[in-house]
Amino acid sequence: MRISILGTGNVGDTIGSKLVELGHDVMMGSRSANNEKALAFVAKQSGKASAGTFADAAAFGEIIFNCTKGEASLDALKLAGAALDGKILIDVANPLDFSRGMPPGLVPALSNFNSLGEEIQRTFPNVKVVKTLNTMWCGLMINPRMIGDGNHINYLCGNEAEAKEKVRALLKTFGWKDEQLLDLGDITNARGTEAVLPIWLRVWGATKTGVFNFGIVR
Amino acid sequence: MRISILGTGNVGDTIGSKLVELGHDVMMGSRSANNEKALAFVAKQSGKASAGTFADAAAFGEIIFNCTKGEASLDALKLAGAALDGKILIDVANPLDFSRGMPPGLVPALSNFNSLGEEIQRTFPNVKVVKTLNTMWCGLMINPRMIGDGNHINYLCGNEAEAKEKVRALLKTFGWKDEQLLDLGDITNARGTEAVLPIWLRVWGATKTGVFNFGIVR
Repeated sequence: MRISILGTGNVGDTIGSKLVELGHDVMMGSRSANNEKALAFVAKQSGKASAGTFADAAAFGEIIFNCTKGEASLDALKLAGAALDGKILIDVANPLDFSRGMPPGLVPALSNFNSLGEEIQRTFPNVKVVKTLNTMWCGLMINPRMIGDGNHINYLCGNEAEAKEKVRALLKTFGWKDEQLLDLGDITNARGTEAVLPIWLRVWGATKTGVFNFGIVR
Repeated sequence: MRISILGTGNVGDTIGSKLVELGHDVMMGSRSANNEKALAFVAKQSGKASAGTFADAAAFGEIIFNCTKGEASLDALKLAGAALDGKILIDVANPLDFSRGMPPGLVPALSNFNSLGEEIQRTFPNVKVVKTLNTMWCGLMINPRMIGDGNHINYLCGNEAEAKEKVRALLKTFGWKDEQLLDLGDITNARGTEAVLPIWLRVWGATKTGVFNFGIVR
């Protein structure tokens, strides 16, 4: 499948590399077509990936991962513009607000009674936004069996059932167990999954490792 | 030990009953000394508990549980006033905002870069506030072994190490395992534990049961 990654940070690099490993055609998008980190990513994939602008990447992918920094995601997606129409956008970003020190809070306008996921859906009504994977360290996103035999939780939410099914199928190829992929409902539930960050960051601080995830104990 | 419960709802009733069962002297405090629900609680304990005003209860207890509704806690605690000075206040409340429908969000002024726990500490500087137990259904607070052999998480935070140790000891008598009691640090970390509610409420909605808790998978 043709899959694009928007963003050149750790998360985008990690997911993009996994997608190449799984045999997908991957393009990494950024503000400029010649972004150094995107070109380094392409070089690392032995030519099995490409790089372009956000608009190039949006046009290329059937599925698009938003791996930009949450506080800048809306601006980045606006650069992709109409090329996103009709596409599935997997939003893994979190609207972190570092302006008052560490650990960050959430961007006030994009939290509590709003969320980044639903703001993206509202801004791009023709895009099928599915929020998932944003509640953990990126190494676990693409290799959940690394801990606890994969028995820990990953939420999905979005307005389109068919888009969520396609994302669920893709997540299973990353190693996710079907019973650990919990569909919370429509995209407003991103308010819940983005609100995991304030506790996730503090558990990380207290335990000195990000290699953990939350599981649901019943 | 003499322990007071502020609040007459489900959470206060559940914790108060457990404390009586463990042999403590319990007083339930509310706005009026003759609150019907507080008197019903006392009757149920075969006379092994008492009822009074918030100020009566604050004066009575060596340890005081804040089980009032989070959105009303500061007002309730102000009625207790100086009687709280020097006491350990275990804050199990959450500042839920039901004004925009279900599921509730958090009270804007008491979330993100603030929290109910730290606002209580700021308002009552002579009280030793310890935030704990607020991230789960009340049946699990006092009987964690009900699920997963007790292997799920309960956070503590607060500014006073000695107060946290006393609370930890009390929590162990509820059945909590030491390794599942994670000290996050000072009371500002209530920002993290209160932010569990938006995801907790949605998991409850998606799974149709509140009898679950989050565990940390490593």
